[in-house]
Amino acid sequence: MTAVQADAVSFDAVRAAAERLRGIAHRTPILASRTLDARAGAQVLLKAENFQRMGAFKFRGAYNRLAQMDAQEREHGVVAFSSGNHAQGVALAARLLGMPAVIVMPSDAPALKLAATRGYGADVILYERERMNRAEVAAALARERGATIVPPYDDPAIIAGAGTAALELIEDGGALDVLLVPLGGGGLLAGSALAASALAPGVRIYGVEPEAGDDWARSWRENRIVSIPVPKTIADGQQTPAPGELTWPIVRRLCAGVVTVSDDDLRAAMRFAFERLKIVLEPSGASALAALLTGKVDAAGARVGVVLSGGNVDAAMFAACVSANP
Amino acid sequence: MTAVQADAVSFDAVRAAAERLRGIAHRTPILASRTLDARAGAQVLLKAENFQRMGAFKFRGAYNRLAQMDAQEREHGVVAFSSGNHAQGVALAARLLGMPAVIVMPSDAPALKLAATRGYGADVILYERERMNRAEVAAALARERGATIVPPYDDPAIIAGAGTAALELIEDGGALDVLLVPLGGGGLLAGSALAASALAPGVRIYGVEPEAGDDWARSWRENRIVSIPVPKTIADGQQTPAPGELTWPIVRRLCAGVVTVSDDDLRAAMRFAFERLKIVLEPSGASALAALLTGKVDAAGARVGVVLSGGNVDAAMFAACVSANP
Repeated sequence: MTAVQADAVSFDAVRAAAERLRGIAHRTPILASRTLDARAGAQVLLKAENFQRMGAFKFRGAYNRLAQMDAQEREHGVVAFSSGNHAQGVALAARLLGMPAVIVMPSDAPALKLAATRGYGADVILYERERMNRAEVAAALARERGATIVPPYDDPAIIAGAGTAALELIEDGGALDVLLVPLGGGGLLAGSALAASALAPGVRIYGVEPEAGDDWARSWRENRIVSIPVPKTIADGQQTPAPGELTWPIVRRLCAGVVTVSDDDLRAAMRFAFERLKIVLEPSGASALAALLTGKVDAAGARVGVVLSGGNVDAAMFAACVSANP
Repeated sequence: MTAVQADAVSFDAVRAAAERLRGIAHRTPILASRTLDARAGAQVLLKAENFQRMGAFKFRGAYNRLAQMDAQEREHGVVAFSSGNHAQGVALAARLLGMPAVIVMPSDAPALKLAATRGYGADVILYERERMNRAEVAAALARERGATIVPPYDDPAIIAGAGTAALELIEDGGALDVLLVPLGGGGLLAGSALAASALAPGVRIYGVEPEAGDDWARSWRENRIVSIPVPKTIADGQQTPAPGELTWPIVRRLCAGVVTVSDDDLRAAMRFAFERLKIVLEPSGASALAALLTGKVDAAGARVGVVLSGGNVDAAMFAACVSANP
């Protein structure tokens, strides 16, 4: 990805992605809650990407990427490695575009996610986490089949597609003072920042990552990409070890900062969403809400957009999270 | 209630209730799901009353009833007996209208529901289920304070308020061929039937009740009000022993029938809502969806409205329901 310049992704690319996704991705609703407004002392607009197709924002980037492949590329199909939402996003986008998809997943991936990915028609190839490198497995498969590897975030089309959620949030909900976005590899945050900074000049944009996986917060402090060991957190969508080469400079340029939340903060936000909003969020999907509820970002009196990025969580994990006492 | 004639509640009363609720109740969203449409072989519009204020449709009727009280009545306040959503609906409506509310609840009511009702500012008075009759406790309280008893469903203003959910569903979503509505005391179904039969002539309207509490199904077959012992079901919002005096004739006149679903059907519908729709439904709130998913109503090729009536369920109960294997 180093060959691609950061300015290869622009607000225009987000707008073009929105056109491509029209009628295909859900234009997800904006939820509001008087209880949340009272608690945050702010006017809060929740962009419910847990209601997106396949249950998370990842479909937006995957479809935007695959839809731009030419006829020959489509014939050979795509390869992705992921045990989570990216896998399902690529699998669904490939099915809709009529191309083959191979997803490389760890052999210990949750049965539910394996089943969901296969359910969207993808071939799932398992690798052993301890003995094999998934990037190498994927690269070998791609070579063998002439297929295209679809990276989870460090790709201009993935970033632009992800940015369409914030685009819709501002188009439908109006201008914002603050925007809070879950942060893993940085695709959602970078795309959101491109859209929001263009549509709502002066908006303060924050990425929110788990405390245990504070690669972005460290990078922000040191003003360079810092890598950490793969973090242990319940936020399985945010277990990236370092900012992306492409996402980092966009985030650094357009955002106001990065904040971290603990796993307990994530559980409390999931519980709030369950009890008061009556919606299902996965841990990563609740991270930006957690930053608001814990007061990690000063939002007093502000008009605050919060991206709820996904809701794919199995029943046992969900029950453990919403049942816990804070 | 026997003094009130069935024709005391009309579509005009539903329309007037909608005016009263404007800007006060949430105009809840209509949800759609490609997965659900494919599974049901129908176009399904879900009216998400689990997103209503206090988490269920009950707020609509309670507010509509209380808002019509005169100054003197308001001063003396209201009394309701309920361990569930009616209690919270009356408590919230009373707070918004600035009047005192006393809620009579069983001493073994879930701590969460006691706390929620008190949280809306109501006085909660506990009675012992085995030793005392709640209607008598409430009547004594009402006499003592000069307060008005607010019944949970067999009241023209409660029925008209409840009917505004179906009114919005058809106004926002368009005409329907079939409408499926959860059925307990019959307030929601009677109100929905008044609205839907006026706005969507020819619509087939069905009430859905738990198998164990089939008082309506029996009444329908025998064409008279039949009482049963208080049913044992996870659908705590549908544990009524008999159709209401006022709701029964409206339902009988305007609906196509009554269907029943098992507790396992309810759990499967809650699980579908959790896994695919990413929303939280309580067992009663999932009953109409359960009737669709189990094919209890012929909906092939139809445009089907489904009222999701509430989402107030504690974490332990929810986890038990969505984790179970069908």
